[in-house]
Amino acid sequence: MTVITSAEVLVSRPGRNFVTLRITTSDGVTGLGDATLNGRELAVASYLSDHVAPLLIGLDPHRIEDTWQYLYRGPYWRRGPVTMASIAAVDTALWDIKGKVAGLPVYQLLGGASRTGCLAYGHAHGATPQETVEAAHAVLARGFRAVRLQSGVPGLGDIYGVGASTLPGDEVRWSRPLEEQWDSSKYLRFVPSLFELGRAELGEDVHLLHDVHHRLSPIEAARLAVDLEPYRLFWLEDVTPAEDPAVLRRVRAASTTPLAIGEVFNSVFDIKPMLEERLIDYVRMAVTHGGGISAVRKILDFASMFNARSGMHGPEDISPVGFAASLHLGLAVHNFGIQEFAGYTDETLALFQPGFTFDDGYLHPGEAPGLGVSYDDTIGEAHPYEANYLPVNRLLDGSVHDW
Amino acid sequence: MTVITSAEVLVSRPGRNFVTLRITTSDGVTGLGDATLNGRELAVASYLSDHVAPLLIGLDPHRIEDTWQYLYRGPYWRRGPVTMASIAAVDTALWDIKGKVAGLPVYQLLGGASRTGCLAYGHAHGATPQETVEAAHAVLARGFRAVRLQSGVPGLGDIYGVGASTLPGDEVRWSRPLEEQWDSSKYLRFVPSLFELGRAELGEDVHLLHDVHHRLSPIEAARLAVDLEPYRLFWLEDVTPAEDPAVLRRVRAASTTPLAIGEVFNSVFDIKPMLEERLIDYVRMAVTHGGGISAVRKILDFASMFNARSGMHGPEDISPVGFAASLHLGLAVHNFGIQEFAGYTDETLALFQPGFTFDDGYLHPGEAPGLGVSYDDTIGEAHPYEANYLPVNRLLDGSVHDW
Amino acid sequence: MTVITSAEVLVSRPGRNFVTLRITTSDGVTGLGDATLNGRELAVASYLSDHVAPLLIGLDPHRIEDTWQYLYRGPYWRRGPVTMASIAAVDTALWDIKGKVAGLPVYQLLGGASRTGCLAYGHAHGATPQETVEAAHAVLARGFRAVRLQSGVPGLGDIYGVGASTLPGDEVRWSRPLEEQWDSSKYLRFVPSLFELGRAELGEDVHLLHDVHHRLSPIEAARLAVDLEPYRLFWLEDVTPAEDPAVLRRVRAASTTPLAIGEVFNSVFDIKPMLEERLIDYVRMAVTHGGGISAVRKILDFASMFNARSGMHGPEDISPVGFAASLHLGLAVHNFGIQEFAGYTDETLALFQPGFTFDDGYLHPGEAPGLGVSYDDTIGEAHPYEANYLPVNRLLDGSVHDW
Amino acid sequence: MTVITSAEVLVSRPGRNFVTLRITTSDGVTGLGDATLNGRELAVASYLSDHVAPLLIGLDPHRIEDTWQYLYRGPYWRRGPVTMASIAAVDTALWDIKGKVAGLPVYQLLGGASRTGCLAYGHAHGATPQETVEAAHAVLARGFRAVRLQSGVPGLGDIYGVGASTLPGDEVRWSRPLEEQWDSSKYLRFVPSLFELGRAELGEDVHLLHDVHHRLSPIEAARLAVDLEPYRLFWLEDVTPAEDPAVLRRVRAASTTPLAIGEVFNSVFDIKPMLEERLIDYVRMAVTHGGGISAVRKILDFASMFNARSGMHGPEDISPVGFAASLHLGLAVHNFGIQEFAGYTDETLALFQPGFTFDDGYLHPGEAPGLGVSYDDTIGEAHPYEANYLPVNRLLDGSVHDW
Repeated sequence: MTVITSAEVLVSRPGRNFVTLRITTSDGVTGLGDATLNGRELAVASYLSDHVAPLLIGLDPHRIEDTWQYLYRGPYWRRGPVTMASIAAVDTALWDIKGKVAGLPVYQLLGGASRTGCLAYGHAHGATPQETVEAAHAVLARGFRAVRLQSGVPGLGDIYGVGASTLPGDEVRWSRPLEEQWDSSKYLRFVPSLFELGRAELGEDVHLLHDVHHRLSPIEAARLAVDLEPYRLFWLEDVTPAEDPAVLRRVRAASTTPLAIGEVFNSVFDIKPMLEERLIDYVRMAVTHGGGISAVRKILDFASMFNARSGMHGPEDISPVGFAASLHLGLAVHNFGIQEFAGYTDETLALFQPGFTFDDGYLHPGEAPGLGVSYDDTIGEAHPYEANYLPVNRLLDGSVHDW
Repeated sequence: MTVITSAEVLVSRPGRNFVTLRITTSDGVTGLGDATLNGRELAVASYLSDHVAPLLIGLDPHRIEDTWQYLYRGPYWRRGPVTMASIAAVDTALWDIKGKVAGLPVYQLLGGASRTGCLAYGHAHGATPQETVEAAHAVLARGFRAVRLQSGVPGLGDIYGVGASTLPGDEVRWSRPLEEQWDSSKYLRFVPSLFELGRAELGEDVHLLHDVHHRLSPIEAARLAVDLEPYRLFWLEDVTPAEDPAVLRRVRAASTTPLAIGEVFNSVFDIKPMLEERLIDYVRMAVTHGGGISAVRKILDFASMFNARSGMHGPEDISPVGFAASLHLGLAVHNFGIQEFAGYTDETLALFQPGFTFDDGYLHPGEAPGLGVSYDDTIGEAHPYEANYLPVNRLLDGSVHDW
Repeated sequence: MTVITSAEVLVSRPGRNFVTLRITTSDGVTGLGDATLNGRELAVASYLSDHVAPLLIGLDPHRIEDTWQYLYRGPYWRRGPVTMASIAAVDTALWDIKGKVAGLPVYQLLGGASRTGCLAYGHAHGATPQETVEAAHAVLARGFRAVRLQSGVPGLGDIYGVGASTLPGDEVRWSRPLEEQWDSSKYLRFVPSLFELGRAELGEDVHLLHDVHHRLSPIEAARLAVDLEPYRLFWLEDVTPAEDPAVLRRVRAASTTPLAIGEVFNSVFDIKPMLEERLIDYVRMAVTHGGGISAVRKILDFASMFNARSGMHGPEDISPVGFAASLHLGLAVHNFGIQEFAGYTDETLALFQPGFTFDDGYLHPGEAPGLGVSYDDTIGEAHPYEANYLPVNRLLDGSVHDW
Repeated sequence: MTVITSAEVLVSRPGRNFVTLRITTSDGVTGLGDATLNGRELAVASYLSDHVAPLLIGLDPHRIEDTWQYLYRGPYWRRGPVTMASIAAVDTALWDIKGKVAGLPVYQLLGGASRTGCLAYGHAHGATPQETVEAAHAVLARGFRAVRLQSGVPGLGDIYGVGASTLPGDEVRWSRPLEEQWDSSKYLRFVPSLFELGRAELGEDVHLLHDVHHRLSPIEAARLAVDLEPYRLFWLEDVTPAEDPAVLRRVRAASTTPLAIGEVFNSVFDIKPMLEERLIDYVRMAVTHGGGISAVRKILDFASMFNARSGMHGPEDISPVGFAASLHLGLAVHNFGIQEFAGYTDETLALFQPGFTFDDGYLHPGEAPGLGVSYDDTIGEAHPYEANYLPVNRLLDGSVHDW
């Protein structure tokens, strides 16, 4: 019987930190999985190398579902970002192996293509609405048909999506979290003007998106959803922290602005009650943080029963391995919606050599067997891990706020 | 201003593995926190030493709530056993420090004693009901007024609470998880006879408890709760896996057997809907895995609004630091219910020198300032970490089942 | 053992009546609590001196939670303003003592500071919108960043927040309640113009608040909440009497104007269903009338689970003792929102010598051990109690209306 | 115009303390109201004499509804036992006056008699079930057709309804609360045997009642309601503290044992949600603590819409004035259910000279104008107030429990 013979955890920083799991079988087939958890990378690396890798040796690589259940139920302590990113990496690597063994791209194993490509959205940001709209024009010029608009807010400095923390690659590194400031009332008054300008300048045909990044209370989120209705957003994202799904009820009752949520979720149980109550329209969970291809496929199938579509997380800190996995899944499921695509630095692309393509606004995972991504150890070793933190937020009175 | 000057992660195995955080302030005051996550110890140790400890240096040790929020909201990725055990350790250590600064045991800072002692329950187990009842007699002879009964089931081998995996200390160590077998129908038919004998032999005055350990489906759990009604259990614990709280509705509707749940939970959001629907009577979350004293106090206060009491987890793999923290909290909150007390090996007691006492069935955290627990580095270093796994369960057809 | 040796009830009128409880321990430590219930002061004084004080003698001052439960559950007859103001005074005084024993300001015992200061709002009122806006400019000139606007309504005489009953100190005293007139339709038509002017004149950056003072029916309140949406209120307060929480459902469904309520509540059970249904955004309960620091902390923790923040009552008739207690609590809890700050006369400040500060729009309770408030018996005795009533309201047909 | 010219608060102790309000009009007509709040008498006396009496002088005694609203809404701080007992006394006294002015017993003003008499239940208690059954035989021999059974529980000492605290009159007085002990598990196991014996010995025709006196958790209460079903209780009373009405849902779902609740309530808002959800069968609120005849009439009318009947509180510490008021109301409303009747000492009867009668199991308020009760100042002054407390409960671990 073919068995797993090694499970290596590879940590590298081609501009930003990535954690990659490489599983090798007794037949010499290798599979890759993404276990990157931005700012908590080494805890996941330890979870995998100290506690999971020893269990994988000797297992049948074909038993993906059994291994998933073994890693989810086996350790007794379930869920959470560290655990589920670890399981996701194992699951993804085993699907990569299965594709290579079958000689098929992973999406074919998931039921084959439901579409010719995956609609992508890009990022536009600027210090002012004018700058943001200029950036959006550049995004559209690259072929995108959908763009997320984020703008600086008068009276606040750098905020999410704008300024220093948005710089790509290793130009900025925080050995302590950058502390940004936040004031919801300033933001709430300002955002409608961004979309008033954006819709006027960019036209009616482009899809406009916006990310609130968990910063509003439910009643504030409801107000914003109402105020943005004239600009017909594709979605309004992460309007409020949502460990408790009931927070969305008021927002949902107030407005017909479509809602997306879930990039910080890691279990189907995080999003299940929102779907059951039909509080959201798009599921932001991606393969890397949602427990792997096996888990996110089930989540999207569940979402289809409640009229929700995929809107998978695709920032720079999901590695090309995780991104490719999301693309294979997105191409296959019927209720795909849209795919976030932030892009990668050249160093990152050199490290992973991903096979996916972007053309005329659509992404495609490519036709190579497995995921279509590789890992170059030489490049990886040349860019060692350095500690880096995501920013945090404080209100004007100094109290911690959601970033 | 007094600031935190060091945060050390101490991993030691005085019989079993414990992860302890020691925070020291610029005034030389030290505080201890328990971060033990059985079977995943090093992932928590990495989370703390690689990602949290650098952030603590220079912070004001008095700002416990702010630090909790900073560590919960700051890393963006919330919840889960690794994250929350890490936060719990920091929070507990800071309460230990505050108690020492104030010259008061921690329970005084939490509102003072609401009772003279914390009612404890012990463990009795055996291969047969007769052996279990004999073990229970021994537990009662040590002063306990409440005892949990677990028995082997005919036709199954070692199961939870019985057999090899219950041996204390380092007599057994699994470098891979022990695989136990399970069959719910055998178990369901058998358990009532255990309590029929137990009630008959142990009398009406002793509190009897039982732990299902997440192994039944909701309808099976409902049946068991009904079948056990004649024996008036103090509680029936973890009747079914409960990431989705709705699983308890059917159990609750069927029976008046009190229900306890939550030792695997790590966030108030895991248990909030169960409390809101009044599906449970006892909250099993303890300080170590529930996010620390600050978090579990809030959870218990929330529980009090829904008529639920504490029943904090107290197995051998919560260290004396975490156990002391639970006792301080339990002595203070009005809605304390019962405290699990599995006891510790002599080596563990030598390492931590805990100040809590057990007398006539009741536990007390002691009157020393802070938590009343210390850490002996010499002993700690003499017992280095060794990998060890909790068992897993498989059904008779080989499929993974909840352990 | 240290025990309580005296519990004195001090009634004084430095401009207006205050009831203060002073508890002294056998170690000579004293603690103060505020038991002022405007217009019913002597009933609380009797409750404390005739029925509670004798019970306190000999108790352990450290057992705050136990004493709270003893006074809440012990007398059989629970809740209500007189009872809960009495319990609040005892609880507050015991926290004051515990802080002094620990050598720490009370906020440190509550988890330390979550922020650098507590955002305050001041009062602006005038016979006309123009006068109100002028008054608001004066409030802002004193450093406030948030201001409540109340204006006279054409066709009505003195109403709440405007006119004779707003005069500070002892300039006016009513030995029978002043009878004001009310007409909701006049008010409803008028109020939007107040905020149209206020927003235009005061700018977008100032937080504007308004207090309806319980005068509208649910459907009227819903209409007002809708009509005020263009002016982005920080909150709309006490829109309707709410002994039955269901009255807020219609208001909530109609509008995204944030709602605050609860200054007349005295038990968590008064506000619990509103929070559970997420009908409100701010909890107006303060330490003095909400049952003390222990009780209001639990209420705010409960509120945090439903996305509600504190907005504690802070009129002139909560004494500096109660106000300081609210500040210590507000500095510590993470879900602080805003603090009402009406200010005190010089005589009141001389009597209590409070240590809290107001600077640049933020309040801080100070760093003295305990609450940081004292009581000067000589000044207290120089200003004896005189009966005084709050106003009442009658509609144009002479029927009693909510004031 | 006839006006109120005096409002006197009379406190007397003919065996136990009573607070009586006497209102006199300019025509020399007097009315009595009961304001007794056992253990907190002087706080109510102060509320009335210091804050309410001055407001009554000069009012038209005929405007009962207006005065009720003036006293409920006027002081701003609503509800609670002290406030509502005060309002009840005023309301009752004004109905007494109106009856005298009309030359009619009060029940005629309430719509006239709906029945010939009010079914009463008496109290039987003993240290053992046998003693209780013997006491019940004696109660039935006095004509009662319904009897409440309370028995001592093995292993507990004096408990509610049994032992020292049940002695009538001034034989026992507690200058500090008697501390009783409680253990719900002992009680739960024992109570069914009391009713097994009671039903067997007393026959099927007698109505049997039982008072849990707020001591069980919801799940325990549900279990008891189930266990008592074979004995067909008339009602099971106060199964759990119920500030939150949701506590009764589980009990209601589990059993068809009729439920009574509300003797500690003082506002319609305390009981409204229980009635709306049809969680109870009998309303225990009485005139004295429920806000007076005007308020309790409305509460019972509301109850009739949800199939609930009256079961008014009638212990020794509701004075003959309050008791007579409840009888007038009970005779008049259609949905009368049963009336508790504990009886009075000879001294109490001498003080109040009540005109009600008890015959063949039924009470009748009599035909004298007004309430049919008087107050003898000479006797009243001969029995001055002495402080006395109701007992409190502690569990075996010393924590405060509901008495």
